[in-house]
Amino acid sequence: MIIQKVLPFTDSLLEKAVRRGSIAIDATVGNGYDTKKLASLVGPRGHVFGFDIQSTAIKNTHQLLESHNLRKQVTLFKSGHEHFTNHVPSTFQGKIQAAIFNLGYLPGGHQHIVTQPETTIAAIEQILPYLATQGILILVIYHGHDAGKKEKSALLTYVRTLPHYEYYVLQYEFINQSNDAPLVVVIEKRKQMNR
Amino acid sequence: MIIQKVLPFTDSLLEKAVRRGSIAIDATVGNGYDTKKLASLVGPRGHVFGFDIQSTAIKNTHQLLESHNLRKQVTLFKSGHEHFTNHVPSTFQGKIQAAIFNLGYLPGGHQHIVTQPETTIAAIEQILPYLATQGILILVIYHGHDAGKKEKSALLTYVRTLPHYEYYVLQYEFINQSNDAPLVVVIEKRKQMNR
Repeated sequence: MIIQKVLPFTDSLLEKAVRRGSIAIDATVGNGYDTKKLASLVGPRGHVFGFDIQSTAIKNTHQLLESHNLRKQVTLFKSGHEHFTNHVPSTFQGKIQAAIFNLGYLPGGHQHIVTQPETTIAAIEQILPYLATQGILILVIYHGHDAGKKEKSALLTYVRTLPHYEYYVLQYEFINQSNDAPLVVVIEKRKQMNR
Repeated sequence: MIIQKVLPFTDSLLEKAVRRGSIAIDATVGNGYDTKKLASLVGPRGHVFGFDIQSTAIKNTHQLLESHNLRKQVTLFKSGHEHFTNHVPSTFQGKIQAAIFNLGYLPGGHQHIVTQPETTIAAIEQILPYLATQGILILVIYHGHDAGKKEKSALLTYVRTLPHYEYYVLQYEFINQSNDAPLVVVIEKRKQMNR
């Protein structure tokens, strides 16, 4: 395949943005897949902050990290990402290289536990000032459920309003698929420009 | 910059899809920029077919190719791409690695000469059967003019109808830019599946 599928695409962006010693955020820990990946990328001198409202997600991810000797560089909060600034001090503003959100229900997950556009947007607004220049915030939006269509539409409307002199906002989406293909939105903080 | 801008993105796809000896199509020759790039990629044993309705485009591109010693592997047709099958014999079906369209008026070009969605779609429908497996067709859609909005909408509506078991269709678009950022659509022919 010539075109990158969604996962290889977001993986390659994370690998480009995150270096040893970086600070990164997994806004939706879930099965811990991205937390583990980010923990490997930042290495023992970097740090990952992870958020999830479900105890099992936190517990399982702790174990996953432990078994890969990645526990040390990760702090997990059993809290919604909309409380980001309550947990991550403002000294980290301008220092985050990457943040990732997996939104909607995950394939194989509990379909009754879905993310809400209001809390997602609240989290994005809190995290954006924490992004470093060339830091990225990735939204992977699974919209193959009823609430997902609304969430997709609300999030697209929101990110379109981000000022183009401060952020690049890319939509990456397979548009002829059956509707379980996620939409990806990538926000990148631009270098300061003289206006 | 972490995210690829439009030109590096389409360039990297062409470099991935097109090899020495490949057959490729520049459906909108214009200034000859893509024709020259494709001619370099296919090399002296490959071939590029180029289409443009403007004599000056054909003439200037001939000269450009001549001066880079790339003339031999290119055939230019002074004809609209909607006449594709009149010019490229059906023996090339299933053998094209890449086709590229630059649609709408080009920055710096004549704003009164714009492409039309009807002829573009007619061309796409003719070219798709010519694509090899893992062959790609790229649409770069400049929609910063009145007719461009309609063209963008008509093309998106059309490509969404392409069957997902035959084609991947990717939308790659900076969505918070001032409206001169082009939309990119990439169509890739999938491997045959048993259905």
